[in-house]
Order: sequence, then C-alpha cells, then structure tokens
Amino acid sequence: MKDVIGGVCAPKGFKAWGLHCGIKADSEKKDLALIFSEKICNAAGMFTTNRMKGASVLVSQESLADGKLHAIIANSGNANACTGQAGLDAARGMAELAARETGVNPADVAVASTGPIGVPLPMEPIQNFVKPLAENLIAGKEGHDAALEAIMTSDGRAKEVSVEIEIDGKPVRIGGMVKGGKMLHPNMATLLCFLTTDAKISPQALERCLRPAVQNSFNRLTVDGDTSPNDTVIIMANGEAGNSAITAFSDEIEVFSKALEAVCILLAKAAARDGDGATKLISVTVAGAPNDDIAANFARTVAASNLVKSAFFSAGASWARALCAAGYAGDFEAEKTSLRFQSRAGSIEPFKNGSPAAFCEKEAKEIFLEEEVEIIIDLGGGFGKATAWGCNLTLDYISMNGAPPGYSGSR
Amino acid sequence: MKDVIGGVCAPKGFKAWGLHCGIKADSEKKDLALIFSEKICNAAGMFTTNRMKGASVLVSQESLADGKLHAIIANSGNANACTGQAGLDAARGMAELAARETGVNPADVAVASTGPIGVPLPMEPIQNFVKPLAENLIAGKEGHDAALEAIMTSDGRAKEVSVEIEIDGKPVRIGGMVKGGKMLHPNMATLLCFLTTDAKISPQALERCLRPAVQNSFNRLTVDGDTSPNDTVIIMANGEAGNSAITAFSDEIEVFSKALEAVCILLAKAAARDGDGATKLISVTVAGAPNDDIAANFARTVAASNLVKSAFFSAGASWARALCAAGYAGDFEAEKTSLRFQSRAGSIEPFKNGSPAAFCEKEAKEIFLEEEVEIIIDLGGGFGKATAWGCNLTLDYISMNGAPPGYSGSR
Repeated sequence: MKDVIGGVCAPKGFKAWGLHCGIKADSEKKDLALIFSEKICNAAGMFTTNRMKGASVLVSQESLADGKLHAIIANSGNANACTGQAGLDAARGMAELAARETGVNPADVAVASTGPIGVPLPMEPIQNFVKPLAENLIAGKEGHDAALEAIMTSDGRAKEVSVEIEIDGKPVRIGGMVKGGKMLHPNMATLLCFLTTDAKISPQALERCLRPAVQNSFNRLTVDGDTSPNDTVIIMANGEAGNSAITAFSDEIEVFSKALEAVCILLAKAAARDGDGATKLISVTVAGAPNDDIAANFARTVAASNLVKSAFFSAGASWARALCAAGYAGDFEAEKTSLRFQSRAGSIEPFKNGSPAAFCEKEAKEIFLEEEVEIIIDLGGGFGKATAWGCNLTLDYISMNGAPPGYSGSR
Repeated sequence: MKDVIGGVCAPKGFKAWGLHCGIKADSEKKDLALIFSEKICNAAGMFTTNRMKGASVLVSQESLADGKLHAIIANSGNANACTGQAGLDAARGMAELAARETGVNPADVAVASTGPIGVPLPMEPIQNFVKPLAENLIAGKEGHDAALEAIMTSDGRAKEVSVEIEIDGKPVRIGGMVKGGKMLHPNMATLLCFLTTDAKISPQALERCLRPAVQNSFNRLTVDGDTSPNDTVIIMANGEAGNSAITAFSDEIEVFSKALEAVCILLAKAAARDGDGATKLISVTVAGAPNDDIAANFARTVAASNLVKSAFFSAGASWARALCAAGYAGDFEAEKTSLRFQSRAGSIEPFKNGSPAAFCEKEAKEIFLEEEVEIIIDLGGGFGKATAWGCNLTLDYISMNGAPPGYSGSR
C-alpha cells in the first residue's frame, strides 16, 4: 500500500468541488460540496445510532437502499437536525438540485449536513449555487481540497487520505476525507466521512469491508462523548480501475478490506488529534481482556474520561486517573493490572501488577510533552486487545462550545 | 419534616470533630475527621461500583458486614486509591487508631479517604493526630462543621443537611454531610456521604431505606462522567430517639424512608451545584418514558452531555443539544417529543411534538441567567418519569483538573 495524492479525487473517475454559497456568514468560508462519479457507483453507508437523526441521514439512507450512488452533496454551517418535516423537505431538495445539475437520478444522490443543530436550513443559497458548483466540477477541476474545505466546521486542519494498492495486477485507489471537531463518540464517531474507490467491487463485498473498517476506526474514536445526529460514512466504488470484480467470496476482498481499514484508521486518528481545542492525540491500548470487544470498551472508556483528558491539558498526566476510568468500564482484577505511558520520548510503567511502581519524573515529563502519547493497560486476563483514540480536553473546547454571553439559541 | 441545625450532630448522641493533621500541605486546611456515637449503631453502606476500589472502601465494607458501627474516620488530601497492599494496611491502621482512641472495636470503625489518587497515604500525620481528634470529640464539642471541613477537597461550599420528623410521637432526626467536586457520576455519584440518625431502626430496615434513597439522589447526579474509586455512603442509626423500633415491615418505615430520601436529594443537588467549576445547577426531567428507570437513564445522559453542559457555560443554552443527547440515550419517537426550559424567570418550549417552535429570545435569556435551570423533555411514550441533576461545564473545571505544567505525577 502506498500513499498517493488527491484525496477523494485520487481514484479514477471521481470529481469534487466546493464553494461558498452563503449558509455560513463568512464569505471566505466554503459551505457547499459535491462529490461525483460519471459512472454510477456501488455504494454503502453507515449512519449515526442517534434517534434524533438529521434529515440528511434519512435521505441518504433512502438513496443507499439500492446500493447505488452517483453523487454526494454536502453542506456545512447547518446540520439540518431537529428541524422536523421542513428539514426533511430541504434535504430532499438538496438531492434533487444536485441530480438536476449533474444529470443523474435524485435517488442516486446522498446528502450530508454538518454545523449547528436545531436551526432551519436556508434553501436559497443552495438553490443559487448548486449550478455553479456542478459546472465547476464537470469542467474537470479536481477539487478535492475545495470540497474538503466546504465540509469543515470547527476543524482546525483538513483531514484527507489517499492510497494505492494492487489488485489483479491493476492499481486500485482509495481516497477519503473526514470532518471532525465535536460530537465525536462511538457509535459512530465521525460526523462526516466520504470514501471513494475505483475498485470494481460488489455492493455486498463493499458492505462487508466497510463495517469492520468503521468498527476498528471511527467506532474507536472519542472526542467528547456526544454522538452526533448526523454521523455519516459513505463509500462509493465506480469500478474504473478495471480489476476483475471483488465479491464477498473472492480472495482479493482481504486486500481491499485491509486497505480500507487502514484509510479509516488514518482518518479517525486525524479526527482525534483535531478534536475541538485538542493539542494532543491520546491512544489508549488495552490488552489482556477476555476478548477484543471488551478490550475496545475499556480503551474507549479510558479515552473518553474527562479527568484523563484534563490531565493531558498541560504536559502532565495521571496514571491513576486512567486506571480509575478502566475501573468503571468493566470487570478485571486490579492485582493483575499494569499500566504504561509511551511516546517517541520513551516509556514508563508507573503501575505494575496491582501496585504503584517508581518512575523517573524527568522521563515522564518528556514523554508527556510529545504530541502523541500512548496509554497501554494490560489487564492480565486474556488475549483481547484493542486501541481507541482520543485527545486532551483544553480550555479551548469550552470556549469553542460555550454559548457566547447572551446567546440563547441553538448550536 | 422540618429543618434543624447541626448536620451529622443534629441527631442525639452523635459527636464529630475535624482538624489539620498534615496530609494537606496547607496548615489552614483540615484533613482528618471523626464521626462517633457512644452507643453502637445499626449501620448500612453503599459503595463505588468502580473495580479499582480505594483501600478505605474495602475496609469499610468489612466493618459494615455485621451491620454495626461506632465511628467513621475520614481523611481528605489523599484518596488512598491505586495504592496496593500498602494502602490497605494504611486504611486498616486508620480504623485501629480511631478504635483505640475512642475505646471501641476496630471492626466497628469505617474508613473513608478522598483526594488525589495513586499517591501513598502518609501515616505519620494520622498517627500523631487521631488522639487529639478523639479527645476534642469526646470532650463534647459538636464539631460537625469541623468534620465537614475536613472531608472537603475541591468543594466550594460546605454541604450538610439536618431534618426532624416525628415517629411514634417522638422527634427523630436525620443529619448528613457530603463531599463533592469531581468524579461524580452514577453509580454512585457522591464521593463521600455520611448520614446519622437517632432513629431506632433494624439493620434490614436501614438497608431497605438507604438503597432507594441513594438510587433517587446520588445515582441521579452527574458532574463529569467519572466514577470515583472511593464513593461511599454510610448511615449510622443509634436508636437514641426512643421510638419503637422501625422494622422492614412496620408502617413507620415509609415515613423514615421518605425523609432519608429527601435528605439525600438535598445533598445530591448541593453536590451538583458545587461541581468543580460549576456556576449553575441543571435539573433534567424526562417524562413520557416507558418506565421510571428508562426515564432516569435519559435524564442522566442529557445531564452528562459535555455539549449540553458547555452550552450553559454562559447564559446561553441549546435545546437541540439536549435533544441530541436524548437521541443517544435510548429509543423514542422524535415526532412525539417536546422540550421545555424552565427557571424562576419563566418557561419556554422551543421544541414541540417533533418540530422546532418559536420562542422569545429575551425570555429565553432571562431563564438561562438563573442559577438553577430545568430542562424538561417529554418523550410522549409512557408514564415513566425521573429527574437527574448536573451542572454546567466551565473553564474552571479544566483549570482545576488539568495538571500544572511540568507535573507528571498523580492526581
């Protein structure tokens, strides 16, 4: 597997574009994106488990029911969630506009929205700008950067990945972009993730690859414990790579599945590192659990602990807080448990087989100063192992998410 | 039920004292407390569900096994948690010292510790000061204030309650104190709560009253989603009120049970309001759920949402964030759901039967400016109802819990 450039436009036959239509007040900020394949794609999606589903989620679920997709239209600046029937009409309207301007069937267009929740989505800016959006895209500009910019909200960095693998002797590419920020918590911690591939792959095989990839990436990511109503992961496969079709039973599914999972993990880690106000990526690995699922639950709980996250606000950290968080995640024997901190600067083990162990304060400080710190907990009770990704909790999280004085509306 | 003064010393026959022994560096801050009844008490306790139990919890569970207690010795400044065998020896040592100086059996002494976790508990200050602590207490000083001060850590206010009820024509009193701050989350959100009563009541009846009281108070409280390893609620009943004994089957158990629950709810609300950095008490009531337990789970989830809590950082609030948090708490029909905000300043209903509804911004602002704000969600799906208590998330939570620069040890 090698890195390539181009994000969602790296695979053959995909185009993307993004522009400012006016949902966001700041005219410097793009807020409308389109991702498109001339050739109809096999497609699969996974969506939020939140019962207050955003209107875009409901429409995308309808579009994906037949496993086919031509395009995704997405906006930022408004999540179109908790908006009732008017919101649902607006989401359907977005799909219809995109379909009309690209000459495809509205039922083959997925919709995604992100931004403040509980605010009616203004349709006029979208009505005015879908046409130039589609025109720019069709004119052949590979606007993955522009599209990515247009799905960002409180994201600090653009998060995209593209890789190439070989299947059948043919180069096959997978590209992806993700929008993060806040409301990131299993299941499913992503807000928005769009994946493209030129692999030829059956809808069943695509579905079979997407589930574990999401399970081992976005479902292992936590920023703030809130599950968004708009979480959406969609993958589109247009078959332009010319490989012989990957089916659920072909050998090549393993190769594709592994690459897709790697792409999703890279995007999930990028989202964790870029959580609202975050300055550190915190990886939590739990080993010695009865099985991998139980290990994943432990890892997620530790990564989600406000006290663990607060401890990493500065260069400090607390091994005991991490152990306490494990303590309310499930059953284990404290006497068999050990904990290590690790980063590029080194490794210390302040807790070993149930008792505190001496460590060098200076070394600890150097470890915690790194931008990426690992917490490794061994429960000594089995072969289950899993990693979860989170970030530190800083003053900026609250500044970014506290309503400004006097503000009483929705966010 | 009427309010009386005296906290844990309000019921007949209870004495308390607190002093600075030197666990805390600041000599102005008390850190060692003793609560004592000359007459042996029937007693019951509930403890953390965290698997990394503090040493004091293990020792108190042993002491309470026979339902009898003379005293509780408690320290702040060190939680004696994650401290291995040495910690367990220290906790047993505390019970023995208290027993020796008060002339009772060590098996009738409970122990509680609160403060930073993962730090060895220094025994010397305790060895030096249990004697003067017991002497002051026995000298007859009703030191409930001093004892309360000595269990506080990051608490902003002293939290105690005492009430009087009538049973059998006899005045019966219940007193309680609580230590809050951080690591407050069901089950069991309290850190430390000591309750005293002069009621004559069997150990079985006491147990039967304590469980629902805790269930409907401390288990409905959330400050930061972290469950402490040291959570402890202990009630001691010395029978000095002279009522005829309350048993699990007597009519009077209802009267006592209701009063105990009221005391626990007052203490739980006081702890929520005084969460680390908090400036507002947020009550979340969920109605229209299939049953009370499900309603309680919804209410706790909304009260625990970092985004809901952040929204109340300033005078603002977001109805949609509260709905979203409900959305990941369980099953319900969005179309039947309504949401109201309420405080002493008034009431607005920004979401009604699945759709946003207009409300007056000015009125909303006035409602949110109050120190106590209620969120009321009606799921329209049954008769289950419950309230949970939380607080807003402010910059101070992180300042208080972020390790200082360069600090790499435990907290």
